[in-house]
Amino acid sequence: MAYDVIIVGGSAAGITAGITCRRHYPGKSVLLIRAAKQVPIPCGIPYIYGTVGSPEKNLIPDAVLEKNGIEFLVDEVEDIDREARVVRTRSGKTAEYDKLVLATGSQPVVPPIPGVDRENVYTIRKDVPYLAQLKERMDVSKNLVIVGGGFIGVEFADECRKGRDISVTIVEMLPMCLAIAFDEGACSTVEEILTGSGVKVLTGTKVSSFEGADGKVEKVMLAGGQEIPADLVILAIGAGPNAALAKKAGLELGPHKAIQVDRHMRTSDENIFACGDCVETLSFFTGKSTALKLASISTMQARIAGANLFGNRRENPGAIGVYSTVVNGKCFATAGLTEGAAREMGYEVVTGEAGGPNRHPGGMPGAQDLTVRLICEKPSGRLLGGQVYGAESGGELINAVGACISTRLTADALALFQLGTHPALTASPIAYQLVNAAEQAVKQLHA
Amino acid sequence: MAYDVIIVGGSAAGITAGITCRRHYPGKSVLLIRAAKQVPIPCGIPYIYGTVGSPEKNLIPDAVLEKNGIEFLVDEVEDIDREARVVRTRSGKTAEYDKLVLATGSQPVVPPIPGVDRENVYTIRKDVPYLAQLKERMDVSKNLVIVGGGFIGVEFADECRKGRDISVTIVEMLPMCLAIAFDEGACSTVEEILTGSGVKVLTGTKVSSFEGADGKVEKVMLAGGQEIPADLVILAIGAGPNAALAKKAGLELGPHKAIQVDRHMRTSDENIFACGDCVETLSFFTGKSTALKLASISTMQARIAGANLFGNRRENPGAIGVYSTVVNGKCFATAGLTEGAAREMGYEVVTGEAGGPNRHPGGMPGAQDLTVRLICEKPSGRLLGGQVYGAESGGELINAVGACISTRLTADALALFQLGTHPALTASPIAYQLVNAAEQAVKQLHA
Repeated sequence: MAYDVIIVGGSAAGITAGITCRRHYPGKSVLLIRAAKQVPIPCGIPYIYGTVGSPEKNLIPDAVLEKNGIEFLVDEVEDIDREARVVRTRSGKTAEYDKLVLATGSQPVVPPIPGVDRENVYTIRKDVPYLAQLKERMDVSKNLVIVGGGFIGVEFADECRKGRDISVTIVEMLPMCLAIAFDEGACSTVEEILTGSGVKVLTGTKVSSFEGADGKVEKVMLAGGQEIPADLVILAIGAGPNAALAKKAGLELGPHKAIQVDRHMRTSDENIFACGDCVETLSFFTGKSTALKLASISTMQARIAGANLFGNRRENPGAIGVYSTVVNGKCFATAGLTEGAAREMGYEVVTGEAGGPNRHPGGMPGAQDLTVRLICEKPSGRLLGGQVYGAESGGELINAVGACISTRLTADALALFQLGTHPALTASPIAYQLVNAAEQAVKQLHA
Repeated sequence: MAYDVIIVGGSAAGITAGITCRRHYPGKSVLLIRAAKQVPIPCGIPYIYGTVGSPEKNLIPDAVLEKNGIEFLVDEVEDIDREARVVRTRSGKTAEYDKLVLATGSQPVVPPIPGVDRENVYTIRKDVPYLAQLKERMDVSKNLVIVGGGFIGVEFADECRKGRDISVTIVEMLPMCLAIAFDEGACSTVEEILTGSGVKVLTGTKVSSFEGADGKVEKVMLAGGQEIPADLVILAIGAGPNAALAKKAGLELGPHKAIQVDRHMRTSDENIFACGDCVETLSFFTGKSTALKLASISTMQARIAGANLFGNRRENPGAIGVYSTVVNGKCFATAGLTEGAAREMGYEVVTGEAGGPNRHPGGMPGAQDLTVRLICEKPSGRLLGGQVYGAESGGELINAVGACISTRLTADALALFQLGTHPALTASPIAYQLVNAAEQAVKQLHA
């Protein structure tokens, strides 16, 4: 077998690199090799346990590969012969490449806590049979403890109670849930929603051990001595890069032990590119590596890698980090830096905030409250971050915020944002939250 | 009476100019004078006749003035003594100003068609008693003819059939409804939705006369000889600037007979500013006057005028034109130039289009199709316009498009758009319509 391009990895980054390559170089042959028979939609995993109902309903369809003229093979690449430009798979196949793309993803972090290897302690793996097994287990569990109150932890807490009588406790090390993504206002709103709907939220505390009889988990012990009964534990404390193959091939790794790439997404081997959770992700703000991992960052990187395979066409601007979630029907979306993160990075900042209904008049059907918070650098006014929460229309409004961050817009320019408004879709042009939050920031910049 | 600032006009532009002035110059006293006792939300007017139910439920609350420390007076300004800086009202009051803001709005265009002054031929005035009278009339009408298939015409056609057994015909001069705002794909989708839901749509034709007995309208005669029975006619063919007061005061008018302003929204009198539908609106694209009239443009201009009253702080970047509507539950949103308009202005363009569900997996509740179409200049790739239609999430996605146009982003940069995606809120990061439409445009740029 010989291909112009071989892609290792079949999730968001691998697929997008393939599609992008075929768009930019339609004459090139592309083979995608992935270990898993079926590929879950990564961000959809928590929804398997409630809204969507099964892992089989949360798959990336293979049709997307076929439609784009990408061949694929279910197998695991075990070795790369960089000299010969050949990959060798677990089943013993070999395939030659001209260009290779590594999109080997990430794996859940398993903390070295005593008892973490007990039965019924799960991580969140992108692995359909494992996710199905977790579902079976969840269906017979009474007391779930989720370790980690980030996006995945909060989404699991929200979803797994749909149609299931289960007690849920979140244990979060930081002072608030979602504290990496949001400032205090949104975080406390999320916690109110969670506790109001019956989830127990324990913040500012750590798990000291998982205990129980017969190798099973029966209780979670906290650092302060508290015990929480548990017949199911989900670890949702993040993911680390899956860079073993790259390391074995002698490619350079970076500070997070992820694959080091340049702004063209090229590794230390000029014929090997990498993208997605397996690479060192460049921060838009610092120009240094960040631990941020998102499917949307992976696909952006893949659009760069895929376009650059046969000549540099695109440069990585660095990841802003735009992401969102839904908790009990309310949207929480964030882009760029929180106020806290910005200050830690040494920025002087001002903030602006504005809320109100996302319809006009407020009596229009479906009206919900929506709050926009903006973080701007002082004295330049440059937008560094934004948070949008409340109504579900925030899920796309955050993309307007992201666009403004990416183009280094200032609060003054944002105050003149050319908004499109409609009674049934958005706030009024007088009350439009994004603009009014910008005006609040402007007021402080000029104070 | 003496005020630092007097504002003439109490709709979107006047209110926003007042709020902005109070934000930037909190020590200044502001009086807003408006002719109408109650101010309708302009974009909400069609919804009075269906979803919202009455003009009283579609008002801009006076609380917004009180909350911002703006006094107001219901009266009509009849004269401006520019030398003495005094306005005189219909009721005989006079008030001194240091700075004056004219936000006198627009009035519906009444075409010189024979019979246009017949009873039961209505325009769309921002006038609560008049709108209430139209509602009473509509409630007893059987055959409504709407002249004009632009946004207001289409919204009336959609709304007035809610809870009302009325036959509706739209007569549009152009070849398609909404043809100024959208290219063919969206226009034909709108027409399918309208006709599919029972509205008769007659395009490419003009009204030659309104006829009937006893001064009433009974039928609408078309240029081709066709007759349409009508006991109610709504003229929705646009609005002209209300610049009579400015003209009387000797202020310079522009090519559309609107008030001429500079980039600081200052009129030919240095102490008089103007904003909203009554001014010549600068186009972002041509730098010349455009006839585009939107509440969102009015408020942007008002944010410039209000901030510049006591010193230039902001410059008008020119209007892009971002607006949206909902037809039978489907969103249609547009920003900037259509392909047709861009070509007419002399641009060489390429377009990109991508559609798909606005959720992932597509089985997530609430999933609807959403299409994004982008128009980019050739060879630079600069984004000139975008159209988003289908799911209601398009109502905020168009604001991301607007942000990208305003910052002169190219299709290549848009292909690396840092999207925020979520299963319950948006398309997947692989299938995100905005990015994939950009990639389609990129493909043609580099072809």
